[in-house]
Amino acid sequence: MKFEFSENMKNIKPSEIRALLKYIHMPGMISFGGGLPNPETFPDEELKNILNDIMENYAASALQYGQTDGLPELKEQLTGYLKADENISVSPENIMITTGSQQALYALPIVFANRGDYGIIEAPTYVGMISSLNANGIKSTSIDLDENGMKTDELEDRLKTMRSMNIKPKFIYTIPTFQNPAGYTMPLDRRKHLLELAEQYNIPIIEDNPYGDLRYSGKKLPTLKSMDNNGLVTYLGTFSKIMAPGLRTGFTVSQPEVLTEFNKLKQALDLATDSLSQYIAYEYIRKGIIYKQIPKTIELYKKKRDIMLEALDDDMKNATWSRPDGGMFLWVQLPKEMNALKMLERAIANKVAYVTGSAFYHNDPELNTMRLNFTYSGDEEIKDGIKRLAKTIEEEKASL
Amino acid sequence: MKFEFSENMKNIKPSEIRALLKYIHMPGMISFGGGLPNPETFPDEELKNILNDIMENYAASALQYGQTDGLPELKEQLTGYLKADENISVSPENIMITTGSQQALYALPIVFANRGDYGIIEAPTYVGMISSLNANGIKSTSIDLDENGMKTDELEDRLKTMRSMNIKPKFIYTIPTFQNPAGYTMPLDRRKHLLELAEQYNIPIIEDNPYGDLRYSGKKLPTLKSMDNNGLVTYLGTFSKIMAPGLRTGFTVSQPEVLTEFNKLKQALDLATDSLSQYIAYEYIRKGIIYKQIPKTIELYKKKRDIMLEALDDDMKNATWSRPDGGMFLWVQLPKEMNALKMLERAIANKVAYVTGSAFYHNDPELNTMRLNFTYSGDEEIKDGIKRLAKTIEEEKASL
Repeated sequence: MKFEFSENMKNIKPSEIRALLKYIHMPGMISFGGGLPNPETFPDEELKNILNDIMENYAASALQYGQTDGLPELKEQLTGYLKADENISVSPENIMITTGSQQALYALPIVFANRGDYGIIEAPTYVGMISSLNANGIKSTSIDLDENGMKTDELEDRLKTMRSMNIKPKFIYTIPTFQNPAGYTMPLDRRKHLLELAEQYNIPIIEDNPYGDLRYSGKKLPTLKSMDNNGLVTYLGTFSKIMAPGLRTGFTVSQPEVLTEFNKLKQALDLATDSLSQYIAYEYIRKGIIYKQIPKTIELYKKKRDIMLEALDDDMKNATWSRPDGGMFLWVQLPKEMNALKMLERAIANKVAYVTGSAFYHNDPELNTMRLNFTYSGDEEIKDGIKRLAKTIEEEKASL
Repeated sequence: MKFEFSENMKNIKPSEIRALLKYIHMPGMISFGGGLPNPETFPDEELKNILNDIMENYAASALQYGQTDGLPELKEQLTGYLKADENISVSPENIMITTGSQQALYALPIVFANRGDYGIIEAPTYVGMISSLNANGIKSTSIDLDENGMKTDELEDRLKTMRSMNIKPKFIYTIPTFQNPAGYTMPLDRRKHLLELAEQYNIPIIEDNPYGDLRYSGKKLPTLKSMDNNGLVTYLGTFSKIMAPGLRTGFTVSQPEVLTEFNKLKQALDLATDSLSQYIAYEYIRKGIIYKQIPKTIELYKKKRDIMLEALDDDMKNATWSRPDGGMFLWVQLPKEMNALKMLERAIANKVAYVTGSAFYHNDPELNTMRLNFTYSGDEEIKDGIKRLAKTIEEEKASL
C-alpha cells in the first residue's frame, strides 16, 4: 500500500549520532562519535552473581509486570543512594523509575508544555532533549554556554523579554555538571542564580545529571536538586554510566504531583520498566557494589580524558576545546569559516569519526563545532585518532 | 512551587486496571481484574541457564546500548519463529523490537495520525490503545463486536459514511484472535472482508496478537498479516504471554518505510530496548525453549478457562458471558440496568475484584459489562471468586 504518514513525523529527524554507530564498526575506524560507556567498566562478575541471586530469590517478581512507577525496593534503595551521593533528601514517593532517562526526557516536556509552547534549553544541549522537543512539537529558546555552563545573565534577560512578550516558558532544561556535549560545569554562583530565577518566574527546572558521579578533577558541586527548597527541580539520574546502559534503567526525582502526571503518561508509553533490570539495579545498590564501581570507572575515564587532552595539546592546531572535569565528552570549536558536517566525509576517509556539533542545537546551529567522546576508545586509539583529526582539519582548512 | 501542567495531561486518565493492582494484594481478595500471566508459566530454570550463557558469552553486548531497531540476532530468530508459528514470511528489515508491545501501541498512532485525526477501533478494545489515543489527542470511531469479533459489515458502512463526510481514518486497530477484553475471535470470512476493506480504502491495519499462541479449543486461524499481500498490516507481537512480561520485549512487523518512521520516534522514546532482555528472548527462541513452553502454558490456562466457565455455568445468574477459545479473558454482560463500576465497591467488600467494562471503551461505554481474567488465580480461587461475584450481582440487582 501507499502510506501517508502524519505531519508529526516530518518534524522528527533521525539522530545523526545513531546513524554514526555504523562507522564505529568499519574496520580501522577510530570513532569519537558515540556516547558509549566503556565495556571495561561493566561489573560483569558482580552482575552475574546478582542475576543468580535474583533467579534464586525473586524470579516470579523479576519476570512479572511491575508497577508503573517502579519497583518499590529499588525506590527505597535509591533514597539512600541519592542522599549519600548527591545529598538529595527524598522519600520513595518522590521517585519514579524510567526506561532510561530518555523516557523522562520524552515525557516531562509533555507534562509541562503543550504543542507550540516554549521550553528553555542550553545551546548546545543533549540530542535526546532535542528529539523530544521535535517529536512533541514544543518550541525552544536557547541560552548560550561559556566555560561555566549556562549564562544565567543571558537567561535573566531572556526571561524578562519573554515576560514582556507575554510568553511563559514551561520549563528550563539544563545539564549543569559535565555538560553533554560541551563538557562544561556550572559553578555554585550560577547554580544559585538559576534557582533564584526559576523561583522568581515560577518555572520548573529539569536537571539532567547522567555524569555527576564521573568527576576526574576539581571539587564536587551540589546538584540543583540538593539546593532546592521549593520543589522547583525535577532531577534525572541513570544507571547507564555507573552500571550498564543496556539495562535501560533511569530515575526521576520530583514532587509527587509531577510524578502523578508522568505516571499517567508512562502507562501509555510502556506500562512499566523492565522488572529484571530494576531488580539488578536494586541489588547493585543494596550490596554496595555501586560505591566500589564508580571509583574504578573514574580511574579508567580520568586516564582517557588526560590522554585526549594531552594529544590535543600536542597535535591540534586551528581549534580550541573544553577541558572537562568529568563526564564523557569534550567540545571542539574550529575557526568560524569551517563546517564540521562538510568535513565529516574527509574525516571518515581518514578513518576518524566525531559528531558534528550542529546536532546539538535545536535552533541556529554553530557549524564549526564537534563533540568528541573520550571514554570508549583504547588509549593508543585516542592518540592516533586525535592525530588523524588534526590532519583532517589541516587538510580541510587548506582546501577552503 | 505551584505547577501548571499541560492541557495534554487532562486528556489522560490513570488506568483503572493499574489502580486495581492494589486490590490484588489485599488479604483474602480474589482478583480477576489484572491481566497478569501466571508465574507458574515462567520458565525460571531455562532462563537461569540462559542468563548464565549470556553473561559468559555476550556480557559486553548484553550490557551495552543496542541499536534502536533492536538486536539483529533477535530479529533474525524472530523471522524463523514468525514463519513457524504464524506463517508470516518476513526478513529482519520488516521487524522492529519494542519496549513491550505497549510502545508500539503508543507510537503507531503517532506515525499514522495527527492530533484530531480518526483511528478506527473495536468496542470494547484494549485499554493500552485507548491511553495512547488519549495521550496523543487522536479521535476514534468504534465498531461493535459480536461473538465473531469486529462486525465488518458495520465497518464497511462506517467507511462509506466517513468517505461521504470527507474524513479519512488513519488506521484500523484490531485484536482479531482471543480479543482483549471480550475473548472473541474473528472467523476467516471476516478477516478476508477486513483486509478487502482496508485495501479498498487504503487504510493501514494494526493487528495486535498478544494471545495468538494461547489456543485451548477450536482450529487455528491465519493472522491478518499472513494473508496480507499488500503491506497493509502492521503486526504486533510480544514475549509477555509466552516468556515473561517483566522483560518488556515486544516486536512490530511491518513494511520498512513504516519502521523507519517508528524508529525515528523510538529514538526519542527510549533510544533502545533493554539489551539483556533482548538477548534472553534471542536465546529463548534459538534454543527452541519457546516451542516447549507454549504447550505447557496452554495446558495450565486451558484448565483454568474450563474451571471458570464451569463455575459460571453453575453459579451465575443474571448475566451472559463469552466462551473464549484462547487468551486470558472473558467478558461478562449484566442486565442493561446494572452498572459494573457502581457495583465494584460491593464486590470489593465481598472480596472479589474485576475490571469494569467501561474502561475498554474510548467513547460511549457499555456500563453493564466487566472483564474477568482466568489465568492468574488458583483453581479453587476461581471457583470461590465466581461464587462471590454471583452473590455480588444478586445483591446488587436486589438493591436496585
